[in-house]
Amino acid sequence: MPEKFWEDFEVGFTFQTPSITVTETHVVNWAGLTMDFYPLHMDKEYCAKTPFKERLAHGPLIFGMAVGMAGLAKVEGGAMIAWMGADNMKMLAPVKIGDTITNRIEVIEKRETGKKNQGFQTWQYKIFNQRNEMVMIFDMKFLMHRKPEE
Amino acid sequence: MPEKFWEDFEVGFTFQTPSITVTETHVVNWAGLTMDFYPLHMDKEYCAKTPFKERLAHGPLIFGMAVGMAGLAKVEGGAMIAWMGADNMKMLAPVKIGDTITNRIEVIEKRETGKKNQGFQTWQYKIFNQRNEMVMIFDMKFLMHRKPEE
Amino acid sequence: MPEKFWEDFEVGFTFQTPSITVTETHVVNWAGLTMDFYPLHMDKEYCAKTPFKERLAHGPLIFGMAVGMAGLAKVEGGAMIAWMGADNMKMLAPVKIGDTITNRIEVIEKRETGKKNQGFQTWQYKIFNQRNEMVMIFDMKFLMHRKPEE
Amino acid sequence: MPEKFWEDFEVGFTFQTPSITVTETHVVNWAGLTMDFYPLHMDKEYCAKTPFKERLAHGPLIFGMAVGMAGLAKVEGGAMIAWMGADNMKMLAPVKIGDTITNRIEVIEKRETGKKNQGFQTWQYKIFNQRNEMVMIFDMKFLMHRKPEE
Amino acid sequence: MPEKFWEDFEVGFTFQTPSITVTETHVVNWAGLTMDFYPLHMDKEYCAKTPFKERLAHGPLIFGMAVGMAGLAKVEGGAMIAWMGADNMKMLAPVKIGDTITNRIEVIEKRETGKKNQGFQTWQYKIFNQRNEMVMIFDMKFLMHRKPEE
Amino acid sequence: MPEKFWEDFEVGFTFQTPSITVTETHVVNWAGLTMDFYPLHMDKEYCAKTPFKERLAHGPLIFGMAVGMAGLAKVEGGAMIAWMGADNMKMLAPVKIGDTITNRIEVIEKRETGKKNQGFQTWQYKIFNQRNEMVMIFDMKFLMHRKPEE
Repeated sequence: MPEKFWEDFEVGFTFQTPSITVTETHVVNWAGLTMDFYPLHMDKEYCAKTPFKERLAHGPLIFGMAVGMAGLAKVEGGAMIAWMGADNMKMLAPVKIGDTITNRIEVIEKRETGKKNQGFQTWQYKIFNQRNEMVMIFDMKFLMHRKPEE
Repeated sequence: MPEKFWEDFEVGFTFQTPSITVTETHVVNWAGLTMDFYPLHMDKEYCAKTPFKERLAHGPLIFGMAVGMAGLAKVEGGAMIAWMGADNMKMLAPVKIGDTITNRIEVIEKRETGKKNQGFQTWQYKIFNQRNEMVMIFDMKFLMHRKPEE
Repeated sequence: MPEKFWEDFEVGFTFQTPSITVTETHVVNWAGLTMDFYPLHMDKEYCAKTPFKERLAHGPLIFGMAVGMAGLAKVEGGAMIAWMGADNMKMLAPVKIGDTITNRIEVIEKRETGKKNQGFQTWQYKIFNQRNEMVMIFDMKFLMHRKPEE
Repeated sequence: MPEKFWEDFEVGFTFQTPSITVTETHVVNWAGLTMDFYPLHMDKEYCAKTPFKERLAHGPLIFGMAVGMAGLAKVEGGAMIAWMGADNMKMLAPVKIGDTITNRIEVIEKRETGKKNQGFQTWQYKIFNQRNEMVMIFDMKFLMHRKPEE
Repeated sequence: MPEKFWEDFEVGFTFQTPSITVTETHVVNWAGLTMDFYPLHMDKEYCAKTPFKERLAHGPLIFGMAVGMAGLAKVEGGAMIAWMGADNMKMLAPVKIGDTITNRIEVIEKRETGKKNQGFQTWQYKIFNQRNEMVMIFDMKFLMHRKPEE
Repeated sequence: MPEKFWEDFEVGFTFQTPSITVTETHVVNWAGLTMDFYPLHMDKEYCAKTPFKERLAHGPLIFGMAVGMAGLAKVEGGAMIAWMGADNMKMLAPVKIGDTITNRIEVIEKRETGKKNQGFQTWQYKIFNQRNEMVMIFDMKFLMHRKPEE
């Protein structure tokens, strides 16, 4: 049974998740799990010749961690039925090994669907590093439980 | 030095990546790496009571694997400078443990940027399972190297 | 800043954590991380000749997961300063690959310490499987933040 | 067939296990496997403001590694039937990333059980770091094979 | 200080290591760590059309596990200075997910080197599955400590 | 269907794979997966007293990564039927954590077999670090598809 529902989240509601340091272990494990060994993430010698000078975390890893951090925050209270997709995903700045990221979330859209027991919402995730620079932004689309009528 | 460039990929160009079976190991390792332990992925007893009857792979895992499979295909030949973001990401059908996914990619947009040595392209990724059902679709935005003038 | 304090948890307070299915991946990854390759966990042929007939999860893995599940529940609200240790840990029944475990926690002891800003508590963790059998029990000792006086 | 038995280990018998360096990889993999993302282990920025200044290894990780190191030492010779539990577990000092730990083990209790083919023993595990500081101590309770009568 | 030396191992000396079941987790983690996603190991649909019908473990994974199992056996007692290489490595039969392998080792060559404190030996590793079929064989070349003269 | 065949690779053909930085994560994950916790790879304090001063990557890890890098290069085009084994494997220099390795491959032997649709080849793998020092060399034996006659 959900503890929270579509009705409990209004447009403009915001919260911040826990923060996590992105380590070399995250990057190497990510590469292995998702099969992405692009030299910008895996080859120190190559990276030394780029403007970044060092290996960068994979952009999709930051997306994956942001999604997990949102769950860790335990704010949604079981209200989610399903993840419908994402939109407007922009990688704004590189994340380096050792950076610490957090996720500031805001409800930006709320809509009824045709069904009485389901509602739709869009939550905007903004990922910041330890210097308060926004490194990534995207919108998450969720189908949510509606509060049962009494 | 790139072997391929923005000029080498025209709108309408398509290719298919290798296929990978999504295993319980992928799901459990993903959960740990991205901190997403939602019961739909991690709790067999909970899942037995859902319409799906069993644990589903995390949607963002399918995104991550699709990105990696695109790299495995070795088609882009070092043409990419950076991943700019993604758009129109839709989770269309659940992926169950044991399903085998592949990624059919099509160049759908191509644009000059202000800079002579860089171009922009959008590649659409369509992820299919072993029954040829499309399970996910999204557009990837890339900044790419342009062929140096002689 | 903690959101909860030693004062917020009274003896007798109970809560239950999320549930997690213990998979072969958990067992193999645990073995590698903690260097414990005892045949009862790693050798199907050996296990087939034991009364259990199949591989069992490492007992300390269940302890580790129980500690993590307690954190996932997000009940303690940052009240913990440090884990002091554990006591009365008893492995009561084997956990097999595929079992789903949950953790029912009760505050069983609460004590002032010499310091005004710190308190001590003992929380009893009882781990149950999907058949509601208690598989493990132990007491966790915590040093906790006390509510600042105004 | 065991090579050693309850009879082969007397109270006062001691041995030391191999040593292992606790790395960032151990900490990040542990967090993912046991779902414990407490900031003291995962958030460099948070840790910089604590008295420890840096991320600490999870206490239960030290317990898990100590158990594995005991097995690596190959002293018990298959004498163990089952792990019954643990007692008097105390975390005495923090373990930082890069510390190297070893386990000094002593048989501290030995008891017959009602059964002729089984005996009970308590082994005390003391975990030391590279500066010979004891960081953790606990008692492990084992059910062991007794030597078959001829 | 080594407990055993070049002098302690004679040609013809044999021992058997512990056994380990090769799981899907081993195969998926191996693929990620070594970047080997060949469809014979990762794609169930592809494998269903091969004579093997199912995914096979990577051959080099069996080599890696055999080396580790030799260490687990704790027979060499610190006698090894360095691994010089390997020879005559033959993959004789496929290893499927769920097979349990063991390693039977024999000292097959022993030679002095120019140095008084070092000796050379070749150990032959034969890997068997649970049906006692040899699946792999290879020779390991070691530089070993010689017993100090008194 | 293979895109390349035994006929497409002549003795003397050479290519170079992508490069990968060998990280602490590779070493710790390798140790866990293959059960090889030899102190030269896992114990910083022990290593400080060796001529190497620091932890070395496991030799077989370099072999495993070299095999994977060969696959990443996507040169063989599905021509391989099976890996038959390896020969003349020599560890020539230590690989330290942080070194970046690449694999230069040369076809050194080509032979018909009794079967019209299969051929045999030996490919020599030479692994180099970022200082262009050869750290490992070995010969890989492959059974390959022959081009179907028309």
